[in-house]
Amino acid sequence: MEMQTKVINTIRVLSADTVQKAKSGHPGAPMGMAPLSYALWMETMNVAPSDPKWPARDRFVLSSGHASALNYTLLHLCGFGLTMEDMKSFRQWGSRTPGHPEYGRTPGVETTTGPLGQGVANAVGMAIAETILAAKFDRPGFPVADHRTYAVCGDGCMQEGIASEACSLAGTLKLGKLTLLYDDNGISIEGNTDIAFTEDVGKRFEAYGWNVVRLEDGNDWRQVLKALQDTQDSDRPNLIICPTTIGFGCEAKQGTASAHGEPLGEENLLKTHEALGMSPELFHVDEDVYAFVKEKMDRGEKARKAWEAMFEAYRKEYPDLAEEWDRWHSAELDESVLLNDDLWKFEGKAATRATGGEMINRLAKLIPNLVGGSADLAPSNKTNIKGGGDYGPENRLGRNFHFGIREHAMAAICNGMALHGGLRVYCGTFFVFIDYMKHAMRLAAIMGLPVTYVLTHDSIGVGEDGATHEPIEHLTALRSMPDFLTFRPADGHETCAGWLTALTSGKPTALVLTRQNLPTYEESDGRAMKGGYILKKERGECPDVLLLASGSEVECAVEARDLLWEKGIDARVVSMPCMELFNAQSEEYRQSVIPCEVRRRVAMEAGSTMPWYRYVGLDGTVIGLDHYGDSAPAAKLFEEFGITAAHMAEEAEKLMKK
Amino acid sequence: MEMQTKVINTIRVLSADTVQKAKSGHPGAPMGMAPLSYALWMETMNVAPSDPKWPARDRFVLSSGHASALNYTLLHLCGFGLTMEDMKSFRQWGSRTPGHPEYGRTPGVETTTGPLGQGVANAVGMAIAETILAAKFDRPGFPVADHRTYAVCGDGCMQEGIASEACSLAGTLKLGKLTLLYDDNGISIEGNTDIAFTEDVGKRFEAYGWNVVRLEDGNDWRQVLKALQDTQDSDRPNLIICPTTIGFGCEAKQGTASAHGEPLGEENLLKTHEALGMSPELFHVDEDVYAFVKEKMDRGEKARKAWEAMFEAYRKEYPDLAEEWDRWHSAELDESVLLNDDLWKFEGKAATRATGGEMINRLAKLIPNLVGGSADLAPSNKTNIKGGGDYGPENRLGRNFHFGIREHAMAAICNGMALHGGLRVYCGTFFVFIDYMKHAMRLAAIMGLPVTYVLTHDSIGVGEDGATHEPIEHLTALRSMPDFLTFRPADGHETCAGWLTALTSGKPTALVLTRQNLPTYEESDGRAMKGGYILKKERGECPDVLLLASGSEVECAVEARDLLWEKGIDARVVSMPCMELFNAQSEEYRQSVIPCEVRRRVAMEAGSTMPWYRYVGLDGTVIGLDHYGDSAPAAKLFEEFGITAAHMAEEAEKLMKK
Repeated sequence: MEMQTKVINTIRVLSADTVQKAKSGHPGAPMGMAPLSYALWMETMNVAPSDPKWPARDRFVLSSGHASALNYTLLHLCGFGLTMEDMKSFRQWGSRTPGHPEYGRTPGVETTTGPLGQGVANAVGMAIAETILAAKFDRPGFPVADHRTYAVCGDGCMQEGIASEACSLAGTLKLGKLTLLYDDNGISIEGNTDIAFTEDVGKRFEAYGWNVVRLEDGNDWRQVLKALQDTQDSDRPNLIICPTTIGFGCEAKQGTASAHGEPLGEENLLKTHEALGMSPELFHVDEDVYAFVKEKMDRGEKARKAWEAMFEAYRKEYPDLAEEWDRWHSAELDESVLLNDDLWKFEGKAATRATGGEMINRLAKLIPNLVGGSADLAPSNKTNIKGGGDYGPENRLGRNFHFGIREHAMAAICNGMALHGGLRVYCGTFFVFIDYMKHAMRLAAIMGLPVTYVLTHDSIGVGEDGATHEPIEHLTALRSMPDFLTFRPADGHETCAGWLTALTSGKPTALVLTRQNLPTYEESDGRAMKGGYILKKERGECPDVLLLASGSEVECAVEARDLLWEKGIDARVVSMPCMELFNAQSEEYRQSVIPCEVRRRVAMEAGSTMPWYRYVGLDGTVIGLDHYGDSAPAAKLFEEFGITAAHMAEEAEKLMKK
Repeated sequence: MEMQTKVINTIRVLSADTVQKAKSGHPGAPMGMAPLSYALWMETMNVAPSDPKWPARDRFVLSSGHASALNYTLLHLCGFGLTMEDMKSFRQWGSRTPGHPEYGRTPGVETTTGPLGQGVANAVGMAIAETILAAKFDRPGFPVADHRTYAVCGDGCMQEGIASEACSLAGTLKLGKLTLLYDDNGISIEGNTDIAFTEDVGKRFEAYGWNVVRLEDGNDWRQVLKALQDTQDSDRPNLIICPTTIGFGCEAKQGTASAHGEPLGEENLLKTHEALGMSPELFHVDEDVYAFVKEKMDRGEKARKAWEAMFEAYRKEYPDLAEEWDRWHSAELDESVLLNDDLWKFEGKAATRATGGEMINRLAKLIPNLVGGSADLAPSNKTNIKGGGDYGPENRLGRNFHFGIREHAMAAICNGMALHGGLRVYCGTFFVFIDYMKHAMRLAAIMGLPVTYVLTHDSIGVGEDGATHEPIEHLTALRSMPDFLTFRPADGHETCAGWLTALTSGKPTALVLTRQNLPTYEESDGRAMKGGYILKKERGECPDVLLLASGSEVECAVEARDLLWEKGIDARVVSMPCMELFNAQSEEYRQSVIPCEVRRRVAMEAGSTMPWYRYVGLDGTVIGLDHYGDSAPAAKLFEEFGITAAHMAEEAEKLMKK
């Protein structure tokens, strides 16, 4: 058999071996996608196994992440450092080959996938990032940022709304260097896709403004390669529809749902080896396959070396640009930001969405690679960078993104932009709409991507828009998500603390901001970056009662403290903008803020009470909203629902009498 | 001016007046949609103001819910009982005219909308429900279930992925009696839709298999009417694209984003009244308008009367079917279910997803209108009704739904089916994927719709699929959502309790089920419907320590109790399948299960610790997972992450030493 076929069949059986050994996984998609993977990895993509992080590499996204065995097989064959031992420990404790591809865990894996549709949107984000860097840094003869982005997806991704959102936007943005290969195998878990999915996918993508190529046979790598070559100069994003056969090579299962999500079985596996002309030995790769692939990898290695030489020349020709390139690609925040006192200057009454907008604009002046936008709510979210221009096909340097009314894709596109490198990204919507985009936020947390979410209209303070637009359980939902920071500032100073946290934590961070005005506190300051701190000290030696609050309810706590003082009760006010940060402080610090000997504690927040029991225990009181909001001017709602200083003081008094 | 135009202009100005008086709301869309609303409400739909709940009425969904003033204006003019006082108290405390349309609050409002795209999917669900009831109950000459479903949406809904998902499925399902009117005004909040949305919507819907009608001018009600008439006999869902002008009639704002989300302003409002030839008086409707509309409403009233006469004859001709119709439309559960001991019979080892599947099949025999399905995970979720057939264009009586890989649309379609009436619905996916569909679940909670969510693979028990597929924060996210029940059973008996809760609570209920096997307890029983109960009593008079757990961790608690007994520590095991139900019990009952005098408490759950502090306070211990999962066989993960009986016993011992 020709070497190309031999490599393809090696991909098939090694993927199937891997799943069989793990007794878990998805063999069918890798077997069907082996030819298109061959055309892409061996004949087209510029990647360099010697440096998986080379900035101008082509990006590869396996959006159908359940086909992880394919990704690992390719990385193994191509020499990215995954050993045969890694292959044999697929899906096992501590391995570099987890159940679904995980960014940061396996060299050469560009994003964490598995939840369907996400990878497609990530790829759109990567392609966007490339256009920005190219517009900023490329110079005649120096295409330093130039590369393509490839994503592979199956029927599942094509059905998910997030992919529809992302691809519609990609069409508007004319991302010509984005190519999506559609593994069109006609099978999903419940059977033939006809039971739920009869649409004309190609026509849909043409409607989005994509360049669509329909292959006769996606099992023929030459057809795939030709399509990849034909689309290199496209001015629109490209969809290559590859009709494939799930489980190709396993006679007993191919073309059926049974090939999808379980090992082929030992007998079927051996028959597959035989049918594909492969050695019966599992986890065996002929040396000529390794050698052949190594030669193919030279293409990328050479491209990388050429790029490095080019960049050296570029650094001489354009030293300022090269320096800026370095800065843009650094995770460190410049001292001009960290030590800038002006960032902290706020006074008077202001909504935190307004102080948030002010922070974006102050930061945008200091951080030229800060870009972001909103899901069509920029005027409300205050996310606009003034004078930053609008990103679009005619202006790749525009810093303001119009994501459209597509929250889920927005968040996942931002993941892709962050994954790409070179940019600092934020996105905005109403807080209640995190319900549309939560899974992308979760993936940002799993990957440790420093995406910032500007989430305004954070409570019943929304007022007249009513229950559908008023978050209740959302703070709880975000705070319970690991490796994610939820920051709800009480004023402008704390908003600054939140933004600096977002820019330095290395974690995705939500800034949860009010629609309504709040006072600025003299005492609020950088201590907010510890997550919780004493905003107003007790008057005496030891407080009778602790008043805990976040965001807009800090104002109530401050007033309640005065009301209580009039009654001879000495209260301390703790502002708690970020529970996750506070919980991570030393025991000593936490004790200094919430001393264990003071058990009379009242917490108040205009949302679900759940997160606060950790701080008030069985002897304290939580005032919150364990019911939905309503439509009325905000002040009326706070009054009717008891989110008031008087109520907080009253509950504290009750505790004193116990 | 002709009466039709006068009615249309009355709709425009009354909507704008309403927004102006409230100093809040969205005048632009109502003003642009007035002609298409006229064609639909006055000339086409069969609705009866005298009985907004008439079962065979045409359904109307305002998916662009921010245009609520339009909906209220129509309901006012058409005589659904909304008074001019109601109009004047738009968006105010206690009014029947909340910020966005709310089901159950305003007669004639069919679903709660505002979060975009949801209404479109609700309408798909309503249209599905109609086909089922028609197939089941219609007889020659007796089209008792026959009606159409209409939805109106704007650019926002068209951009949301949930609508893409729902409309793709609607095409596959050939829902010919569904019509979507697209208010194509080219404007969204950030400006012209071209900045983010240049796709060819009509072509996209053709790709879905829809019948697409493109109007020249959506401001011309006659064009809309003709399209509505032309599509009455379509065998595919219908999209009517209506090019409109946002804020039509307000010269200063029409066709711009400024018409969208704020009152026109007093001056502009008066000019609009004048430009449209309307009286300058606000909240004024000429008597001839009321009279004209009343006459138009006769069409629906007559249809309703004819339907009632028909149904009376049907009851004589088909008494059994008529009785079944009544049963299908009753919210009460039959005694054959409630008092059926066989439902509770479980023994041995089984995953709760398996006992859940068994429950579905036991219940399906007793409840013929129980239908449901999965987002392409039925074999894993065990949601299949054996012998129930597959729902599709060729089999409207199929009880198993193939929603495709479209979680968000699935949940919102189920909302639509529940809203329609006549069915009991459930849907399934992996628990972690509630992140894709949470907003539809929230709307079910706001509306009080008894949709059941079968959520399997509920923890690190997922094992090899790894972190992306292992829920952590999801129990917390659901439990903190008001008016929603989250039920995580420990065995088959508790699974039965969960299902009966779901069928009787009148609330949306999530059944959170394991992939892995669990034992069946002799002591578990109907007390689980109280949310929490004593599964294993202490041996002595008073427990030394309380062990609290839910689901799979109950097994650890039971073992830990024995381990502790060996060390002379007397523990009580509390099984807590549903915190929301437990919290709603009497103080006395809760005390009897978790006595306040026993402060040594250990709670364990394979998820975020947050919900448990309410029960263990500052003196107890919560063992959980405040980090992500990993890939390995499930038993290995539980061991590595300390979700074990030994760990629970150890923590209890530590408490004893304090």
